[in-house]
Amino acid sequence: MSELRKDPVTGRWVIISNERRKRPGDFLLESVHPTSNASCPFCAGHEQMTPKELMAYGRNGSGPDTPGWSLRVIPNQYPVLRVEGTLDREAEGLFDKMNGIGAHEVVIESPRHEDTLATLDEGAVEQVLWACRERLMDLKRDRRFRYMIIFKNHGAAAGASLDHSCTQLIALPIVPREVRDEVDGARTHFMTKERCVFCDILRQETADRRRLIAENADMVAIAPYAPRFPFETWILPRRHQACFEDSPRHEYASLARMLGDILRRMNKTLRMPPFNLLIHSAPVAEEAGEYYHWHVEIIPKLTKVAGFEWATGFYLNPTSPEEAAEVLRDVRP
Amino acid sequence: MSELRKDPVTGRWVIISNERRKRPGDFLLESVHPTSNASCPFCAGHEQMTPKELMAYGRNGSGPDTPGWSLRVIPNQYPVLRVEGTLDREAEGLFDKMNGIGAHEVVIESPRHEDTLATLDEGAVEQVLWACRERLMDLKRDRRFRYMIIFKNHGAAAGASLDHSCTQLIALPIVPREVRDEVDGARTHFMTKERCVFCDILRQETADRRRLIAENADMVAIAPYAPRFPFETWILPRRHQACFEDSPRHEYASLARMLGDILRRMNKTLRMPPFNLLIHSAPVAEEAGEYYHWHVEIIPKLTKVAGFEWATGFYLNPTSPEEAAEVLRDVRP
Repeated sequence: MSELRKDPVTGRWVIISNERRKRPGDFLLESVHPTSNASCPFCAGHEQMTPKELMAYGRNGSGPDTPGWSLRVIPNQYPVLRVEGTLDREAEGLFDKMNGIGAHEVVIESPRHEDTLATLDEGAVEQVLWACRERLMDLKRDRRFRYMIIFKNHGAAAGASLDHSCTQLIALPIVPREVRDEVDGARTHFMTKERCVFCDILRQETADRRRLIAENADMVAIAPYAPRFPFETWILPRRHQACFEDSPRHEYASLARMLGDILRRMNKTLRMPPFNLLIHSAPVAEEAGEYYHWHVEIIPKLTKVAGFEWATGFYLNPTSPEEAAEVLRDVRP
Repeated sequence: MSELRKDPVTGRWVIISNERRKRPGDFLLESVHPTSNASCPFCAGHEQMTPKELMAYGRNGSGPDTPGWSLRVIPNQYPVLRVEGTLDREAEGLFDKMNGIGAHEVVIESPRHEDTLATLDEGAVEQVLWACRERLMDLKRDRRFRYMIIFKNHGAAAGASLDHSCTQLIALPIVPREVRDEVDGARTHFMTKERCVFCDILRQETADRRRLIAENADMVAIAPYAPRFPFETWILPRRHQACFEDSPRHEYASLARMLGDILRRMNKTLRMPPFNLLIHSAPVAEEAGEYYHWHVEIIPKLTKVAGFEWATGFYLNPTSPEEAAEVLRDVRP
């Protein structure tokens, strides 16, 4: 029989469906394979095709917007939100609106078109995380921004518009709903129990081990108890910390190692799936230090979201997290 | 510049993006064209390939599970939730679960494989709505169910697993999150203003007309102020009513006429898009009569949901509702 399960942070229910059970080979997916593209604006040598860079790593004397970099951060050419202007709030009869103030940046992870987070070496992945941290620290000083989201779309099916591997950063003038629910859920848990809910999850999952995928000195990868999607994977730092950008340097190295490991396991067992990667961190200027705990979510794009999910916010997942964890745990990368 | 807009019911913010503006021809979509399939279990003559029917319309003396019907309702062969058993609630350490009690039924809209809601005549579409009403009335008597959702997935990209046009009905033992947010938002609006928020929307949109798509005696079709998706369309009954199943018969006829009209407009202007159709109605056994207002949402599947949306619950929409309404209003079906 199917099971209804509740996420202990957001209170979101999901259905783990046995009737429609799917194993890794059952998903019809759009695999993402390395390509080449002579006119890619993110490749080394094409720096003039992008907006002017905000920062770069790896230059050995080469000037901005020229080759010689190992990582490059640029403003998005078609930004979702723009930095220029003041934030205006306005009513339109019954309705409320604001103008689109924010920031939208792109971290180009490598000068080479065919690299991915799964094939880059650990140091290069750590550099990506470090660049995100640097940009967060800078954007945080802008008092108009309430939330910064770091995410990655890998493959067209996951929403990527270019093949070249990159991570995006968007600064928002409001705290979005999904984040609000998570932060409020964590606060409620803390207020009743005086404990961080993510620390509780870490304790239970590392003891129970059925949903544990991998662990290293600083990071633990699990299949969450109530995943929306098959093979959804969370990576949590063992040490309690509300904000991603406040972590000590060695935790970025541990996360880089864990990310590469998990993505290679997924590539092997799920046949190079498209995926989304999200870094959940506490909102700027909220005292979430005691009760929030930053983490990474990886969502392979294996299923289609249909009417039931859109209408209810209730996800139907054909693969139990116990089965997903077992499969990913047993892959030999 | 882009705009941030807030839905007055749920409080959900969306970004209407001008930088990434898309017109109807700009979407790369998987058009849904009529097909044939000699082994479709939903076609007339194949009644033995489905579970036993719960009800049928149009029979003229023919027995159950034989040809001769114009509409047929069956339990889903691979149900998301099952009717049999008692609802058990259980903790698993930190986590909460229930067993998968519920109901999952399928309304086969026509005996012919190639029919769709856009090509069926008005009477046949009305029959679909009436069948949904009959099944709702029956399922409502089961006290284990808290919410019933009626939805339709049209085309593989919108999550349909079979081509044959059908509508699904799922009864849930809990009120799902998306519904909770909507109902709570409507209640809050009523408590502050003593007015239904949907009646307020109807008043403003029929006066303003910029987001109005079509209207008839009982129904109004609009592009909502803060749509998550391009060309998202809502159909609202003019008369205040919390529950879909409590409407007078002539409103189903008016809705059938409006549905066919809107879907034909979309087929013409958006090139036979895949879509999801959702009927939002008040939860069973809640006193929502004064503040909730049932309605239909149609979501053409034109864009991919990416990391930003999954992380934030904040939707990025490249087509403003004013532009979508203008396009759909001007189509001559």
